[in-house]
Amino acid sequence: MLLAEKSTERDWKSIIAQLTAVIGKKGIIQRRDELITYECDGLTSYRQRPALVILPKTTEQVAAAVKICDENNVAWIARGAGTGLSGGALPVENCVLIVTALMNQILKVDLENQRVVVQPGVINNWVTQAVSGGGFYYAPDPSSQIICSIGGNIAENSGGVHCLKYGVTTNHVLGLKIVIPSGEIIDIGGEIAEMPGYDLTGLFVGSEGTLGIATEVTLKILKTPESICVLLADFESVEAAGSAVSGIISAGIIPAGIEMMDNFSINAVEDVVATKCYPRDAAAILLVEIDGSAVEVATNQASIAAICRENGARSIDIATEPEQRLRLWKGRKAAFAAMGKISPDYYVQDGVIPRTQLSYVLQEIARLGKKYGYYVANVFHAGDGNLHPLILYDNSKAGALEQVEALGGEILKLCVKVGGSISGEHGIGADKRCYMSEMFTETDLETMQWVRTVFNPKELANPGKILPTPRTCGESANSGHKFPSIEQY
Amino acid sequence: MLLAEKSTERDWKSIIAQLTAVIGKKGIIQRRDELITYECDGLTSYRQRPALVILPKTTEQVAAAVKICDENNVAWIARGAGTGLSGGALPVENCVLIVTALMNQILKVDLENQRVVVQPGVINNWVTQAVSGGGFYYAPDPSSQIICSIGGNIAENSGGVHCLKYGVTTNHVLGLKIVIPSGEIIDIGGEIAEMPGYDLTGLFVGSEGTLGIATEVTLKILKTPESICVLLADFESVEAAGSAVSGIISAGIIPAGIEMMDNFSINAVEDVVATKCYPRDAAAILLVEIDGSAVEVATNQASIAAICRENGARSIDIATEPEQRLRLWKGRKAAFAAMGKISPDYYVQDGVIPRTQLSYVLQEIARLGKKYGYYVANVFHAGDGNLHPLILYDNSKAGALEQVEALGGEILKLCVKVGGSISGEHGIGADKRCYMSEMFTETDLETMQWVRTVFNPKELANPGKILPTPRTCGESANSGHKFPSIEQY
Repeated sequence: MLLAEKSTERDWKSIIAQLTAVIGKKGIIQRRDELITYECDGLTSYRQRPALVILPKTTEQVAAAVKICDENNVAWIARGAGTGLSGGALPVENCVLIVTALMNQILKVDLENQRVVVQPGVINNWVTQAVSGGGFYYAPDPSSQIICSIGGNIAENSGGVHCLKYGVTTNHVLGLKIVIPSGEIIDIGGEIAEMPGYDLTGLFVGSEGTLGIATEVTLKILKTPESICVLLADFESVEAAGSAVSGIISAGIIPAGIEMMDNFSINAVEDVVATKCYPRDAAAILLVEIDGSAVEVATNQASIAAICRENGARSIDIATEPEQRLRLWKGRKAAFAAMGKISPDYYVQDGVIPRTQLSYVLQEIARLGKKYGYYVANVFHAGDGNLHPLILYDNSKAGALEQVEALGGEILKLCVKVGGSISGEHGIGADKRCYMSEMFTETDLETMQWVRTVFNPKELANPGKILPTPRTCGESANSGHKFPSIEQY
Repeated sequence: MLLAEKSTERDWKSIIAQLTAVIGKKGIIQRRDELITYECDGLTSYRQRPALVILPKTTEQVAAAVKICDENNVAWIARGAGTGLSGGALPVENCVLIVTALMNQILKVDLENQRVVVQPGVINNWVTQAVSGGGFYYAPDPSSQIICSIGGNIAENSGGVHCLKYGVTTNHVLGLKIVIPSGEIIDIGGEIAEMPGYDLTGLFVGSEGTLGIATEVTLKILKTPESICVLLADFESVEAAGSAVSGIISAGIIPAGIEMMDNFSINAVEDVVATKCYPRDAAAILLVEIDGSAVEVATNQASIAAICRENGARSIDIATEPEQRLRLWKGRKAAFAAMGKISPDYYVQDGVIPRTQLSYVLQEIARLGKKYGYYVANVFHAGDGNLHPLILYDNSKAGALEQVEALGGEILKLCVKVGGSISGEHGIGADKRCYMSEMFTETDLETMQWVRTVFNPKELANPGKILPTPRTCGESANSGHKFPSIEQY
């Protein structure tokens, strides 16, 4: 309200002049046709054109730009590579989008202390490339790792195939330089894990750009394992595959990752990329990656194969050489793209359930899919119970998106009902904030809002994301946050 | 100031009556002689008698008591078992001490989902005892684990010997029910790791009772490893031992823990407990614990032994049976007690350094010890660079404590200088807040203060801890926080 009332005070001409003085003319995008790219992130079903895009290169430029936004009551949103799936980087009307694409420098590589310092626009995979020669790698590996940025990973606390063993992004961030919405620069965390005081780094990771923008990131890197092996097992029922997953974990083995694909996904993948590795008649396959010392991998591989067989696996394929491993992974890696080929559109959900509920929840998802009349494919991180139901639909059909969102919502509520969560690794963003009250009480959410207000008192940094305002679902992802129009000047 | 002005409004008679109505007469300690126990925690050099001690049993009782404190502007401090080493539970004048000793129930054991729910007064070791029959254990293991409480572990984000491989307390807490200083009850985190929204659990763990008090704790438990082995290697120089530590980590092996003891500590331990395992002429010994599958342990044991030999280890002793392992650990576990026997008093420091700086820092500590004229023994978590210099002194000598604190301060500054931290696992508490500005800028500290103010706006919950107020060292641990006297009524 306060902001809306101030609209007449806002002078875009002057704002643009100030931003140009800081960033330079080349770092500012204002043309309508060039702004189209920035209307959405990976959640393409919501779109909103920003007023401006700026492309800073340094912390100081970001700080100065944020200060200008603060002084002029302009909303701003940080955006990395724009691959996020929950609309975390969805613009609001008349906002400034701060794109980190040109903040792409690896600032320091310190192999001895197993850490690197990077700018937020550095692509996830570049970190591993920068240190692999020295025998190290960066563990969090979202499917989009060849295109997604470290800054975006931090905003959404991204996971990946290997987070079963190695944890998600927050477990790999040592320190951050951040610009808070007042335009001040602060350092949180540090170069080592044991930092005293409040764990503001942990608070910031996963805060989806609502507490500030990271401009320098200190990441932990890990020693490349001596040996890696991938095991593919196929099952005649989803229950059998689920019970093999429980069996592996109960045996005290922690593979790097355990992925599951259901029959629908297997066939979609074979139709499109023809890996010829995945049996088309399998109800489900498991892909288990094991890493560690050669002897440890060999032992775990034998134990896992035995557990799969005990649980009814029909066949087991094992790959140790890089090329063979890639062959087994190929279908899994191509799964989302395959869905895009066999269906005009798909909607990915991201819920978490306790592993023990796997087979019940998959049955319920199938039942809900039938009820709504949509195919739901399941390709997911089975080891940590992180489901990714893919709902196939055609966005050109009137009302389809609304139905699909309703189905997705029922799936999320199901996850919560069995003791799980509405997000494993994609974040809440604009997409799922209305489900937050399924998991948290009013008081819990108010506490989160308090913390947000400390950093972001005017709600200028990524307004409306994460927390449910308005509190009910069914309203537009942008509703509740109207900023005065740039057309006014 | 505001509080001091309100002193005349404070009516202790009425406060006690209200607390009695909530907790019951038996749950309140008022007698001077009984209050002596509560004048300090494990940091015995600072003492302050609280006005009252209360012993609630339920979340609701804690919430009601905190509300009474809030309404009457009375400072309150949460205390677990009182084993903390940084004065985190040190009372302030005229405060209410909320002691969790009677909140000692294990509320739920869920082996299938690998979690337990406990009250905060549960002793660390009880958690493992409750689940070991099912093949599980709770990983964080501070030296005081048979007497320290889970609530205290959460407040201080405690570590232990095994945190090299398994992380500190924050990595093992899934969810918390907390009472915030307004007296409201909120739930943060949950039953699974992947909770959306801001990571308030991470923020709360390590906040030393300044954001609220945990009344229910959901902890992760881990599968008991199939095999454990302890390796003792002795070296002719600290440098050689340090370089063996680096060699092990560089080889990509992560033992459960790597402990180092220097010559002074070895002899102190042999004098007092006569383990007969530790060579008295060694400059340093390493104790390396390896866990995992039998084959993994056997392989890693061979690699670690080889690395130690390459770095000049004179002898290597290996224990796999429980009794043998205990024999090798006995001296390390008794080290602090041994110092208490050979010296009237000792002061434990807790700093962190990058592993690569180990031998330089130990040399500097020896030099500083000589400069001040005190023996400094070193018994510490070498794997993660977490030093515990033990300064031996006699508190009955005038000025000794001040000198020892000054020496301790120089050691902490040295840790910061080489890129380390002023606390690894003991917390900041009352003891080290004046060193916070060595690590953080004014803006960084202000940001922490903002976050604190959100939860604790009147500064009634554990006033004065963690953050440097007053900003300079050398003032009393309690200074800056004067509350009106209970004697006034």
